[in-house]
Amino acid sequence: MGQGFFGYNPPDFVLNAAKDALNRVECNQYSPTKGRPRLKKAIADAYSPFFDYELDSDKNVTITTGANEGMLSAFMGFIEQGDEVIVFEPFFDQYISNIEMPGGKVVYVPLHPPKDGATKTTSAGDWTLDMKELEAAVTDRTRMIVINSPHNPVGKVFSKDELQAIGDLCVKHNIIILSDEVYDRLYYVPFTRIGNLSPEIAKLTLTVGSGGKNFYATGWRVGYLIGPEHLIKYVSAAHTRICFSSVSPLQEATAVAFEQADAHDFWNQSKKEMQAKVKRFCEVFDELGMPYSDPEGGYFVLANLAKVKLPEDYEFPPHVASRPRDFKLSWFLIKEMGIAAIPPTEFFTEKNAHLVEDWLRFAVCKNDDILDTAKERLRGLKKYIH
Amino acid sequence: MGQGFFGYNPPDFVLNAAKDALNRVECNQYSPTKGRPRLKKAIADAYSPFFDYELDSDKNVTITTGANEGMLSAFMGFIEQGDEVIVFEPFFDQYISNIEMPGGKVVYVPLHPPKDGATKTTSAGDWTLDMKELEAAVTDRTRMIVINSPHNPVGKVFSKDELQAIGDLCVKHNIIILSDEVYDRLYYVPFTRIGNLSPEIAKLTLTVGSGGKNFYATGWRVGYLIGPEHLIKYVSAAHTRICFSSVSPLQEATAVAFEQADAHDFWNQSKKEMQAKVKRFCEVFDELGMPYSDPEGGYFVLANLAKVKLPEDYEFPPHVASRPRDFKLSWFLIKEMGIAAIPPTEFFTEKNAHLVEDWLRFAVCKNDDILDTAKERLRGLKKYIH
Ligand SMILES: Cc1ncc(COP(=O)(O)O)c(C=O)c1O
Ligand SMILES: Cc1ncc(COP(=O)(O)O)c(C=O)c1O
Repeated sequence: MGQGFFGYNPPDFVLNAAKDALNRVECNQYSPTKGRPRLKKAIADAYSPFFDYELDSDKNVTITTGANEGMLSAFMGFIEQGDEVIVFEPFFDQYISNIEMPGGKVVYVPLHPPKDGATKTTSAGDWTLDMKELEAAVTDRTRMIVINSPHNPVGKVFSKDELQAIGDLCVKHNIIILSDEVYDRLYYVPFTRIGNLSPEIAKLTLTVGSGGKNFYATGWRVGYLIGPEHLIKYVSAAHTRICFSSVSPLQEATAVAFEQADAHDFWNQSKKEMQAKVKRFCEVFDELGMPYSDPEGGYFVLANLAKVKLPEDYEFPPHVASRPRDFKLSWFLIKEMGIAAIPPTEFFTEKNAHLVEDWLRFAVCKNDDILDTAKERLRGLKKYIH
Repeated sequence: MGQGFFGYNPPDFVLNAAKDALNRVECNQYSPTKGRPRLKKAIADAYSPFFDYELDSDKNVTITTGANEGMLSAFMGFIEQGDEVIVFEPFFDQYISNIEMPGGKVVYVPLHPPKDGATKTTSAGDWTLDMKELEAAVTDRTRMIVINSPHNPVGKVFSKDELQAIGDLCVKHNIIILSDEVYDRLYYVPFTRIGNLSPEIAKLTLTVGSGGKNFYATGWRVGYLIGPEHLIKYVSAAHTRICFSSVSPLQEATAVAFEQADAHDFWNQSKKEMQAKVKRFCEVFDELGMPYSDPEGGYFVLANLAKVKLPEDYEFPPHVASRPRDFKLSWFLIKEMGIAAIPPTEFFTEKNAHLVEDWLRFAVCKNDDILDTAKERLRGLKKYIH
């Protein structure tokens, strides 16, 4: 339940497309550096309905080696030594090194957990951004901001109002918005794309997607960025220098995946299935009377373990003992219950880590039998709850 | 005949391994950032016979997204602002931007074409490095040197003596050697690995390989670096930040490819086939009385077109007219003969471009019928040769 990879395979229509691609000479050789034309077109077609303008597959889409290298390409394309990039805490950890590689400076703004998150189950939407704090973080050097919705690890889907406020601020200060939407098909409340809020905001927004996250194939390393040509071209140029081109047969398969997803009712099923997994797994927290943050999107659940009393004489190894309480909880869960969860202070700076030291992140993108086993093991926590 | 991708598929045992991998859940999800254990082991096993020490798959091998991103990872791992990296001209063009990304400065040392290369066919081994020039290029800031053998585009396989001299110089000045050996299975004269010349040189050497080049799958983006642990660990760390991890199912397939290559006599066949392609294609130059540089390795042939007299009134578009003669030759060949070749001044700085303005690079890694068609078209040059 630790890492965010899937415990099951991509759907057959996607796997078969990959196998077909492997039979074709041109699908085994270098793709154009900006991506295979068929994939760019499939993405333009799949995303045009979400935007008020028709996406041009050559100008508005570029393919990268996973969303990860796509975001690095964006930072490499725009950040110069000393430029500042605003990142919310908790953050996906790769952002930090990727911003620092071209010499950028990360400026942190925390998402605040719900005040009553330790005593009752709340919505992931109750994690809040303080717009005053965000405004105060903007300086003359602010070049970009990173947004992540649906959010890892919080599970928050930013509301239209929140995104509008962020977008307006960015327009005012001419800040490029890197909107990490890798979980964009997994939302359980209305989902807004900041890149489509207004033409002014659209001009500043790069939307990041992940074929790996969409189609249960995190190991395929096919990502993409969508946005206005004057931004996309810098991303493509950086990507060419970083990876030259991305993996060809799996680009082709991802193209087919986008082309055929609707016909297979894949998006609806995928969302329904994941929401069912969230529900199935969280039952155990209800049972235990342990509060959690109910995700609005994605496949991560943050549970609050404030009520868990760790045995006082329990011996933690030094590298755990020296860390915040969530590390101890995580260690205890692995050792005593055989269940892995991620301590979220990993995704915070030291200054704000205290905000989440009672929480743990569980990834529910696993087979139901694994979820059931995990639940059974978690029941062992009962005797530590007071 | 332009780009260096293969005109045919990987062998069936490799393609089948890829299809098998696609059926396995763990092969579709994130691999460990340093690479799949099976692939690292397969590479350690395949390369240990070439080194005087046993490669440890965890310490001496790391997997990257093609050789390209592997080399970027190496530069990112070692180069700081202002560090110098020595690169021979002609160079594989990605080196330059990859060195510059972490703030490195490229210092160029030319390979000199054979003096009589315009009048008679010579060996690619006759392209020479002037050790005096190389020594003069070393400064206090020299951190790395890039070697490429077998060489793109020259086709030269550096001799043991040349490599020993380069290696000794690097030991003297403590310069890290990045040895780009992506064509390491295609050599037609004895091939020496600089990383195995002496323990002192080995300590400084990172050897770069490419599954894509080895197994006719340039689009798979599986590369690897081999070297001492104290160097490899920085490459892995940089790679993690750049791509997180590399493509899983094709890593698994590449592992099988290395495991089974000998049983299929693949390496011998591969070398024999490529050498036959070189021979088959170069016949047309013999026929035309046009000298070329006979490759000692790899799949590129440099032909010397000094004897070709372009029509005086031929109209070149401005972006071609303004470039050296090889660009005009290349344009003329495409437009008038329908055959693509790469102008090698692309791989030189302006200062040294004049060295190769009569040469063109042809990639022979294509099906024989394509080679035959290309030959037939090249015969059209006859009337321009004086
Ligand atoms: C928020 C977020 N962005 C990006 C990524 C990376 O996506 P990809 O696997 O396509 O590189 C992840 C993966 O966990 C993620 O959680
Ligand atoms: C000399 C040299 N090094 C590296 C590469 C890149 O190899 P890969 O496709 O594995 O990134 C090439 C590709 O043409 C090359 O010619």
